[in-house]
Amino acid sequence: MSQFPIDDIVRGLQAARHEWRDAQQRTQTGGERELPSRQIMSEVVEALTGALFPLRLGPEDLLQDSEDLYVAHTLDTALRQLHGQATLELRHAQRQLGEDESLAELSARAAAKVRDFATQLPAIRRILDSDVMAAFQGDPAARSVDEVLLCYPGVSAMIHHRIAHPLYQLGLTLLARMVTERAHSQTGIDIHPGATIGPGFFMDHGTGIVIGETAVIGQRVRLYQQVTLGAKRFPTDPEGNLQKGLARHPVVEDDVVIYAGATILGRVTLGQGATIGGNVWITDDVPPGAAVTQASLQKAKGQRPGDC
Amino acid sequence: MSQFPIDDIVRGLQAARHEWRDAQQRTQTGGERELPSRQIMSEVVEALTGALFPLRLGPEDLLQDSEDLYVAHTLDTALRQLHGQATLELRHAQRQLGEDESLAELSARAAAKVRDFATQLPAIRRILDSDVMAAFQGDPAARSVDEVLLCYPGVSAMIHHRIAHPLYQLGLTLLARMVTERAHSQTGIDIHPGATIGPGFFMDHGTGIVIGETAVIGQRVRLYQQVTLGAKRFPTDPEGNLQKGLARHPVVEDDVVIYAGATILGRVTLGQGATIGGNVWITDDVPPGAAVTQASLQKAKGQRPGDC
Amino acid sequence: MSQFPIDDIVRGLQAARHEWRDAQQRTQTGGERELPSRQIMSEVVEALTGALFPLRLGPEDLLQDSEDLYVAHTLDTALRQLHGQATLELRHAQRQLGEDESLAELSARAAAKVRDFATQLPAIRRILDSDVMAAFQGDPAARSVDEVLLCYPGVSAMIHHRIAHPLYQLGLTLLARMVTERAHSQTGIDIHPGATIGPGFFMDHGTGIVIGETAVIGQRVRLYQQVTLGAKRFPTDPEGNLQKGLARHPVVEDDVVIYAGATILGRVTLGQGATIGGNVWITDDVPPGAAVTQASLQKAKGQRPGDC
Amino acid sequence: MSQFPIDDIVRGLQAARHEWRDAQQRTQTGGERELPSRQIMSEVVEALTGALFPLRLGPEDLLQDSEDLYVAHTLDTALRQLHGQATLELRHAQRQLGEDESLAELSARAAAKVRDFATQLPAIRRILDSDVMAAFQGDPAARSVDEVLLCYPGVSAMIHHRIAHPLYQLGLTLLARMVTERAHSQTGIDIHPGATIGPGFFMDHGTGIVIGETAVIGQRVRLYQQVTLGAKRFPTDPEGNLQKGLARHPVVEDDVVIYAGATILGRVTLGQGATIGGNVWITDDVPPGAAVTQASLQKAKGQRPGDC
Amino acid sequence: MSQFPIDDIVRGLQAARHEWRDAQQRTQTGGERELPSRQIMSEVVEALTGALFPLRLGPEDLLQDSEDLYVAHTLDTALRQLHGQATLELRHAQRQLGEDESLAELSARAAAKVRDFATQLPAIRRILDSDVMAAFQGDPAARSVDEVLLCYPGVSAMIHHRIAHPLYQLGLTLLARMVTERAHSQTGIDIHPGATIGPGFFMDHGTGIVIGETAVIGQRVRLYQQVTLGAKRFPTDPEGNLQKGLARHPVVEDDVVIYAGATILGRVTLGQGATIGGNVWITDDVPPGAAVTQASLQKAKGQRPGDC
Amino acid sequence: MSQFPIDDIVRGLQAARHEWRDAQQRTQTGGERELPSRQIMSEVVEALTGALFPLRLGPEDLLQDSEDLYVAHTLDTALRQLHGQATLELRHAQRQLGEDESLAELSARAAAKVRDFATQLPAIRRILDSDVMAAFQGDPAARSVDEVLLCYPGVSAMIHHRIAHPLYQLGLTLLARMVTERAHSQTGIDIHPGATIGPGFFMDHGTGIVIGETAVIGQRVRLYQQVTLGAKRFPTDPEGNLQKGLARHPVVEDDVVIYAGATILGRVTLGQGATIGGNVWITDDVPPGAAVTQASLQKAKGQRPGDC
Repeated sequence: MSQFPIDDIVRGLQAARHEWRDAQQRTQTGGERELPSRQIMSEVVEALTGALFPLRLGPEDLLQDSEDLYVAHTLDTALRQLHGQATLELRHAQRQLGEDESLAELSARAAAKVRDFATQLPAIRRILDSDVMAAFQGDPAARSVDEVLLCYPGVSAMIHHRIAHPLYQLGLTLLARMVTERAHSQTGIDIHPGATIGPGFFMDHGTGIVIGETAVIGQRVRLYQQVTLGAKRFPTDPEGNLQKGLARHPVVEDDVVIYAGATILGRVTLGQGATIGGNVWITDDVPPGAAVTQASLQKAKGQRPGDC
Repeated sequence: MSQFPIDDIVRGLQAARHEWRDAQQRTQTGGERELPSRQIMSEVVEALTGALFPLRLGPEDLLQDSEDLYVAHTLDTALRQLHGQATLELRHAQRQLGEDESLAELSARAAAKVRDFATQLPAIRRILDSDVMAAFQGDPAARSVDEVLLCYPGVSAMIHHRIAHPLYQLGLTLLARMVTERAHSQTGIDIHPGATIGPGFFMDHGTGIVIGETAVIGQRVRLYQQVTLGAKRFPTDPEGNLQKGLARHPVVEDDVVIYAGATILGRVTLGQGATIGGNVWITDDVPPGAAVTQASLQKAKGQRPGDC
Repeated sequence: MSQFPIDDIVRGLQAARHEWRDAQQRTQTGGERELPSRQIMSEVVEALTGALFPLRLGPEDLLQDSEDLYVAHTLDTALRQLHGQATLELRHAQRQLGEDESLAELSARAAAKVRDFATQLPAIRRILDSDVMAAFQGDPAARSVDEVLLCYPGVSAMIHHRIAHPLYQLGLTLLARMVTERAHSQTGIDIHPGATIGPGFFMDHGTGIVIGETAVIGQRVRLYQQVTLGAKRFPTDPEGNLQKGLARHPVVEDDVVIYAGATILGRVTLGQGATIGGNVWITDDVPPGAAVTQASLQKAKGQRPGDC
Repeated sequence: MSQFPIDDIVRGLQAARHEWRDAQQRTQTGGERELPSRQIMSEVVEALTGALFPLRLGPEDLLQDSEDLYVAHTLDTALRQLHGQATLELRHAQRQLGEDESLAELSARAAAKVRDFATQLPAIRRILDSDVMAAFQGDPAARSVDEVLLCYPGVSAMIHHRIAHPLYQLGLTLLARMVTERAHSQTGIDIHPGATIGPGFFMDHGTGIVIGETAVIGQRVRLYQQVTLGAKRFPTDPEGNLQKGLARHPVVEDDVVIYAGATILGRVTLGQGATIGGNVWITDDVPPGAAVTQASLQKAKGQRPGDC
Repeated sequence: MSQFPIDDIVRGLQAARHEWRDAQQRTQTGGERELPSRQIMSEVVEALTGALFPLRLGPEDLLQDSEDLYVAHTLDTALRQLHGQATLELRHAQRQLGEDESLAELSARAAAKVRDFATQLPAIRRILDSDVMAAFQGDPAARSVDEVLLCYPGVSAMIHHRIAHPLYQLGLTLLARMVTERAHSQTGIDIHPGATIGPGFFMDHGTGIVIGETAVIGQRVRLYQQVTLGAKRFPTDPEGNLQKGLARHPVVEDDVVIYAGATILGRVTLGQGATIGGNVWITDDVPPGAAVTQASLQKAKGQRPGDC
Repeated sequence: MSQFPIDDIVRGLQAARHEWRDAQQRTQTGGERELPSRQIMSEVVEALTGALFPLRLGPEDLLQDSEDLYVAHTLDTALRQLHGQATLELRHAQRQLGEDESLAELSARAAAKVRDFATQLPAIRRILDSDVMAAFQGDPAARSVDEVLLCYPGVSAMIHHRIAHPLYQLGLTLLARMVTERAHSQTGIDIHPGATIGPGFFMDHGTGIVIGETAVIGQRVRLYQQVTLGAKRFPTDPEGNLQKGLARHPVVEDDVVIYAGATILGRVTLGQGATIGGNVWITDDVPPGAAVTQASLQKAKGQRPGDC
């Protein structure tokens, strides 16, 4: 007998689980795995990162001569794992809807999605190269493109995002979210996988950046730490439930720069080439080329900063 | 012979350690472990998380049929480890006080604390379920309660906090702090284990949130990123030493919402249902139901935002 | 045959890599490792941390009697690894410059740097002890110096920085950056390895702190979360390229305290003993002993907060 | 490009595999695992051994108070793994026969077999206890029953056999063979899982012992190293194929002792209490109580030793 | 609920354990580890082997410059582990005797034994060097002394024996047996740790060699595979119990060679320089310098081979 | 200070090493690895085994669709490792000869050998298939060719031998020996890598089989446990040193069967189709087709068994 009342606690936890499942109208599934696994998605991301940048982010002892063999084998393994996780997500979604697709159909649908995702990998590599170049050119402390790829959290967050976004577009939203939350944990940068981001995107320092689900970001945009591209308010339907999926985050056009701590809320547009100063609070459109600071904002609007 | 002067460095480091120990009036203990281990506490948290949510956060290959067996064995192992760490913390505290309890007594005291903690686990599961529901209902991007539990950093931080807080209440403050700092590292959310937090608590995005030791938070409270519930000043005693343990952080009543970047300092009360706008700086009480923005603050008080 | 078009993707990724290498004017190196490894640098930091604080941050089962043997063996292993990584960095730098030093010369240069670094370790330990004391004395929630060392993210970030800074000074800037980005990921604190920081430095909570490459910080300075010591603007040379390496970050003199969210930009000086209030935005010198708040700033300057 | 002609070798190995599969009339199965895994069966045996003798052969840090929880969880995991392996074996057998049972039927059949096996575990533990006692009582060098269980290869081989034999009886002959070959590799003792062995069986030293598929051994039998209980000849059917499954190995009655190097061949019976001397070669029945040495054999038969 | 009757089996196994413990008159110990661990002893042997031959049998990446640091740290760790295991063996022995020494006394006694053992390590290394030389000089297939040390199972068995024998002499017979059974499993060579073996001992091929507890072997002796130095019979006391500890195995004097498969039984002496032919069976003394074959034996004794 | 005299023991072991190195006339090499590693060669064998039989002996979760990708990547990795080990062996041999080839030349020679070895792999697979078929056809207990490949120690030993033999032929005798001793440890079968063995070779049970360096074995030969194909005597040169490399082991022609325990010594020939009975001792040629038993030997020669 343990000196701790294990049996009682086990029963107590079981009761709590049953309450939850009843409240969620979950049926007992017995012998089947229900949900994708964070651990496996983490392995998938690690493998895809190695396949995208084999010599720099792949295994320690990889040599250039072996790149293709490594990439082929790693992709094969990672895509199979991803297929398994995608099947679990689709089945989970079916269960919630009370639908009843066969496992074979689910697996085939998942395979089609993974195939679609996989063929985008070379394009993902190229756009990530543009992000690396943007960071190198935008940061006076950067000494080489390799330092940027190996060290910069903003680049790491973009590797995750550029993997997650196609998964999101393919309807694998849970897997996509697992991928971006991995980046969030490692970098403090929170980009929703639904956000659309053009090439040459650079986030300096990065910690505390938040980019919402429906944000749209153009080319060569630069963000500093603690910038928020958020929603202004959450509309509810007549029953008072949140309306999900509405466009509610900013549009940021090409070549915009947003300094640290700025907060942009709602479906506003920051016009091409605009510069947003540190700590400003914006809830209206900004014209192309404008330079907005707290002072300028107040002058232009005759109001105090942060009014909303 | 190494090409590096290992012996000299070892002696140098030894001298530095001895200086420190002399300054701290530490006696040499020789053959005994002195302090709890971050690594073991990390394993304990991982195991307890699995025991609380076996199918979703437990091992990859766990099936529903095996839940109880897994929970029982995992708890047994984790509680033993926790008992060992708790004994180390109690002994460490004794040494600092120069007291001299026997190891058997320390172990028995530690076991009683662990038993007390363990019996709270079903209640911890239930309150965490309320946090998950709050996040699902409060975030338009959330697609399922399972996505919330698997992905949301705010939920992960609360799992840590709701384990750490009872440990803190039982006087195991060092272990409690190890637990919350694990969450801090993973999520960028820094909740002191002493903080009291009611059910249905939701932190969106989360990065940069700081909640102090004596904060008291009611039910259904919602916080956004970079909110601080901090202390205004640190009172000192007549000798100029910091007074530790005084109530110095805010009280947040039920149903309050605090938007991103707001800073609430000192033992003030945010009344039930109040809404605190982004980036505001508050050092006074806010009445129930009030909606505070930077603009409203300035109007009400005839002063500029951020004065303090 | 895989159900995914592995061969096509491998060829696509290969083409993308070749484009990049052509654009970067990289020659094919075939059978040689090109770059240092994050994984190995992470092991080096872990080992050095254990060698600096063997009983508290070393292996779980280490006893005081075995400290010196552990430290000696651990240093021997870690310094060899560091030597290997330093040689890789020097060779990588040579390649970028198109120079052609022999491997033996590179290795000897790397060894000299590692030796120089290694002899600083006892001094590093002593200055870290001063940081621990500063945290203990500055935080009313701290219960013991051991809690501070084991739990505080600010201390963890300083262990990384005080290892990284001498590497940076020795010209191993890539390795140095790998070390500090490890801390950034774990703590949300982003200190560039070039920053100069005096003893007794304390960062409370820490998340979101950014300290730039040329910042200079005196003794007994205290910072709260989300403080930025940044650059105001990035000067370009006549061709429009960023000028790298210029002194462009603040000088913070002894005994300064900077509260949460304050932003100090450019090569300004915060005079000895100054206090900077929360959320203020400073781009000019602050005299010794001054207490700056948003309100005081506005009065002194006759301008609105955050103007810049 | 690798410096080794990987592609050519891969094609060469592929061709060799296809030849083999053609010769074996194997169809390509594509995406399904075909065969049980030695690695997993090794884990199953390790787990069952721990479940049978938790404190002595289970995990290093197990305590008596936790035995049952450990046993329950370990069995649950191991029996699931065994179920998976059993299903693979049954499907493999089906394929070879060209039969076409559904996966669900195969899985149900496998589950029934594993259930049958599992309920025999307490009896397996008891008969193994009798083997341990026999070793302790039969070896003057044995100092305790615990030394026997922890150290004696003969006991280790019997743990494997007593797990393998019921699997063999249930028709899981491939899994059974994997188990006994694990013992063979570790101990040099080669017992076919089909052999029937009574309680109190002791093999001293053990290396080189061979016991054939249809051997039948009574209670309290003792064998020394390099004893063979083998087949005399292998009958073939009219087409010249080996006839499989015939009773062709010795019957050894209760209380027989067989000294080192003795060879007993064919379906002969060693009568109760017989003693067989070292290195003798026996192909005929031995009456109960007889003591057979090379000398006695020769006298009794008027022939030279080893004639056959 | 598992599909297997886990609870019933757990209860059945529990009942079987209780029967055994009752039969063995074991008291329930609850929360204490009872017995040494094979796993830990295996780690101890691995570590000591590395400490004895650091560059050849130590870690893959060890370099000559680091030998002493590696040896010191490895010994420190291994001897502590051995001390823990020795304490467990002494306590286990106490329990069986019903004695009641304090844990502190047991630990001190164990430490003294480990200290005694440890100081013998340099001598153990030297005698092992003589064994390596003997193998190199005695085997025409040996190409270098390094091949012998790295590859020959006879040398591996002697490393184990020369570690185990002093443990046996110090009364740690269970630990000693764990060590030699590790060799037995790896090499098929079964040397009881009690056997006394002089320098320059060589076993060619080795599989199936058995050397009993009270055997005494001189210098420069050579054995081939499947040689037995065994006991002739096991004397019992008046109650019929085996008498343990009597000298019952052969004495083999210097420079004796024994060919494959020879069996020497009982407390007989093989005189200096004798040669024993393959497969002979000896139960009487052999004079110095004699060459014994099956033929010679039969002539000398007028009897058939193998009579006994 | 440790409670064990670590420093003294380290010095003692150091002195013993220096004695050995002086006696072996080894120069101090300081910072370079001297010898191949058993651990790495074990990994190489494991990888090659997987590449030869990917679905049956490769990783647990490999599927048929991924075979070629797995094989390619595994070979690439394993052949690089083998190249590194081969370079170490060649350098070690150079040092012993006092020769002075450059590292680049050694590496190139090693690469050529590995390339030669690698191109033999498809042929190795085919001949191993013939061994598997021989075992299946020769053992009435075998139920399928897969059982044979997965379970039979004789097959495992041949996988090792058929990898080791070409290495031996290429002059990598130390690596070859490491490979075969791995098999020896796992199976108790000791085949020198120099032995030449034709296709369709089957060893039943296997434990204790010894096959010497210069043995030559034809096609479809079958051996049972404890058969020795050894040398009769070891000729010495005029100085009394062993003459290494002479043909001194048996030639076994096609279709010979040798039963358990038979010992064949010296450069004798067993003619095609001969059958050698159990336990016989042969030192002369046997004509084709002959059936030799102990009785027949004695009759034919008028002498007692085992005379030699």
